[in-house]
Amino acid sequence: MTPAPEARGDQRVEPSLVRFELLHEDAGTRARRGRLFTPHGVVETPMFMPVGTAGSVKAIAPDDLVALEAQIILGNTYHLMLRPGEALIGDLGALHRFTSWRGPMLTDSGGFQVYSLAERRTITESGATFQSHLDGSRHVLTPERSIEIQETLGADVMMAFDECPPSMSERAYLEPSLARTTRWLHRCVASWSRLRSSLFGIVQGGLFEDLRTRHVEEVCSVELPGYALGGFAVGEAPEQMHAGVAFSAPLLPRDKPRYLMGVGTPLDLVTCVGAGVDLFDCVMPTRNARNGYLFTSQGKLVIKHARYSRDDRPLDPACTCYTCRTFSRAYLRHLFVSQEVVAMRLNTLHNLHFYLSLMKEARQAIEADQFSSFLAGFLARPTVVAEAESSR
Amino acid sequence: MTPAPEARGDQRVEPSLVRFELLHEDAGTRARRGRLFTPHGVVETPMFMPVGTAGSVKAIAPDDLVALEAQIILGNTYHLMLRPGEALIGDLGALHRFTSWRGPMLTDSGGFQVYSLAERRTITESGATFQSHLDGSRHVLTPERSIEIQETLGADVMMAFDECPPSMSERAYLEPSLARTTRWLHRCVASWSRLRSSLFGIVQGGLFEDLRTRHVEEVCSVELPGYALGGFAVGEAPEQMHAGVAFSAPLLPRDKPRYLMGVGTPLDLVTCVGAGVDLFDCVMPTRNARNGYLFTSQGKLVIKHARYSRDDRPLDPACTCYTCRTFSRAYLRHLFVSQEVVAMRLNTLHNLHFYLSLMKEARQAIEADQFSSFLAGFLARPTVVAEAESSR
Repeated sequence: MTPAPEARGDQRVEPSLVRFELLHEDAGTRARRGRLFTPHGVVETPMFMPVGTAGSVKAIAPDDLVALEAQIILGNTYHLMLRPGEALIGDLGALHRFTSWRGPMLTDSGGFQVYSLAERRTITESGATFQSHLDGSRHVLTPERSIEIQETLGADVMMAFDECPPSMSERAYLEPSLARTTRWLHRCVASWSRLRSSLFGIVQGGLFEDLRTRHVEEVCSVELPGYALGGFAVGEAPEQMHAGVAFSAPLLPRDKPRYLMGVGTPLDLVTCVGAGVDLFDCVMPTRNARNGYLFTSQGKLVIKHARYSRDDRPLDPACTCYTCRTFSRAYLRHLFVSQEVVAMRLNTLHNLHFYLSLMKEARQAIEADQFSSFLAGFLARPTVVAEAESSR
Repeated sequence: MTPAPEARGDQRVEPSLVRFELLHEDAGTRARRGRLFTPHGVVETPMFMPVGTAGSVKAIAPDDLVALEAQIILGNTYHLMLRPGEALIGDLGALHRFTSWRGPMLTDSGGFQVYSLAERRTITESGATFQSHLDGSRHVLTPERSIEIQETLGADVMMAFDECPPSMSERAYLEPSLARTTRWLHRCVASWSRLRSSLFGIVQGGLFEDLRTRHVEEVCSVELPGYALGGFAVGEAPEQMHAGVAFSAPLLPRDKPRYLMGVGTPLDLVTCVGAGVDLFDCVMPTRNARNGYLFTSQGKLVIKHARYSRDDRPLDPACTCYTCRTFSRAYLRHLFVSQEVVAMRLNTLHNLHFYLSLMKEARQAIEADQFSSFLAGFLARPTVVAEAESSR
């Protein structure tokens, strides 16, 4: 994967390996229906990306992802650089071959986990130094190093190395941070070989509309195959996040995919699709599944509750996933309280099916120019199963 | 599930719901090829039964069992009576419906776990009293209660309630224990409704040939649809166990299935098939899988070892399981050392495939009257992958 000497450092932006096609814009909202072409297949947007933190979407395997009709998954550069190390993955044929996931894949830059997981981190103009949360070992992550690692991992899409400040940061902190993230973007672009992975830029700016506007201009002045909104869902209220995305997403280029990083709840997804977002990722469906918090068409269901101990119904009578087609709430509760390992897989299959189905319904609603009514219908759903059931 | 008054307590033995057909006896050994017909399907013997302790073969789901071509699984009465309780399972349609496993199923009597897991147990002529290892709650298990629980669980085959003494027990302990197990068998038969589940008797006797002979006579004087050898692989050396089984198995009725309980290693299985055993169960393939100990045609492989960190080969190049078709040793090691939940499923799929394939090969060898050479070929295999590889 070492690029030719004249390629590395070349400032020209070459034709991307990833290409986006805007198929349709909803008549009543800003929602968009699109298609992302990648070297490993096509992604229909809007789409949710399950998170495969350490080279595995936790508790499930690629056969499960295929059965779920997942179209693209995410890998975390921070986790993979620490264990097993990007060099090992590269030597074994890069991330697709290592994990046996054959579809499209995206890696983040590692920056977000450095800020949220690592210890003793310091950020300078050069980049970030930190200690591994696994063993305390010392590491450096710079824009160049992040791109080098991500190109070695070889995902279809890689992300620019940025700083992700807490959303409630003051303007005085954000302004120099944004300027540095922009300089880092140029360093990412300069070190990008363009041989395998496509680079997406990241817009920050917290909840300040003028800073978001300015940073969109800075980031999108670099011609890239896609752009992301970072710095949302990092501490602000959902309403603030929704307003920030509603303001920011339409500022991004119409003909490029828009990726809202680390978001969110089902409500967040549906709302932000309505603001014109195309791609999402979040650990929520998978992490909640492992903790027994399940998403259903009737609201959230906490499977450990005693009320489900003799409940012979599926988790969600409206759901067609393997878990709902096969098992009762009573059995799933038994597996969960007995700490049976398979509970994590069955719950994960269900929650991911819920997220992926929600996106599929959203795509169909956009195609039919009915996203407004789809959104209204979603907002009218119960939020917790218990409420729905006790009201019968 | 309440039997008609005249049925419960009826000492007559009625036609069994389970029927065994002896298809062929190997020309050179005592190995047998048979077929067990049950209300939930046919079991080709010799067969290994994966253990579904608490209503789930740990780390995998029924879809996995179907893909593995597992034909019969075991459920543990002790675990299920404590959690979620047999009454709950019965109310929800019995064990098959509760777990969604549609194939044949066998339950043990609960006795073995009372002796191995429970606390403060006391054994009297009436039965066993003990405290749950889960919450210290007090329980009583008698022959009648075990049959009642097992009939509520509703598996195809249920086991007589016996005492399983350590294999090194003295004759002075064993003789009264055997006599009591025989009396308990008669109590099991007396309380058996014969409405859904078929009852197998259990022969004990430790390593004393005269006691085994005497107990076979006592147990097999009761006409039952199958008989088991208990009290093996409970502390004695493998050679002692093999000798004890080689002596005892041929004493059992030729036209009934012979089940060797709680056995064992692949070597144990192949050896005891050669002695005329038809059915086995053991937690070894599933428990070892979760601990990263994997069975291969080249011997045992400990996946956490650093030597596999860059090993691009499958666990077992000769294996056709999903894990071996899809993943490298390097990736499986990464999942294991990263404590990814899916490692348990992938390792379990492989180990069970190994056990089930070994039984399939044994069945084919018996059909071809070549079990002797199959056994010799198995004994010539390497026992540990490391040895095989360091000798290259």
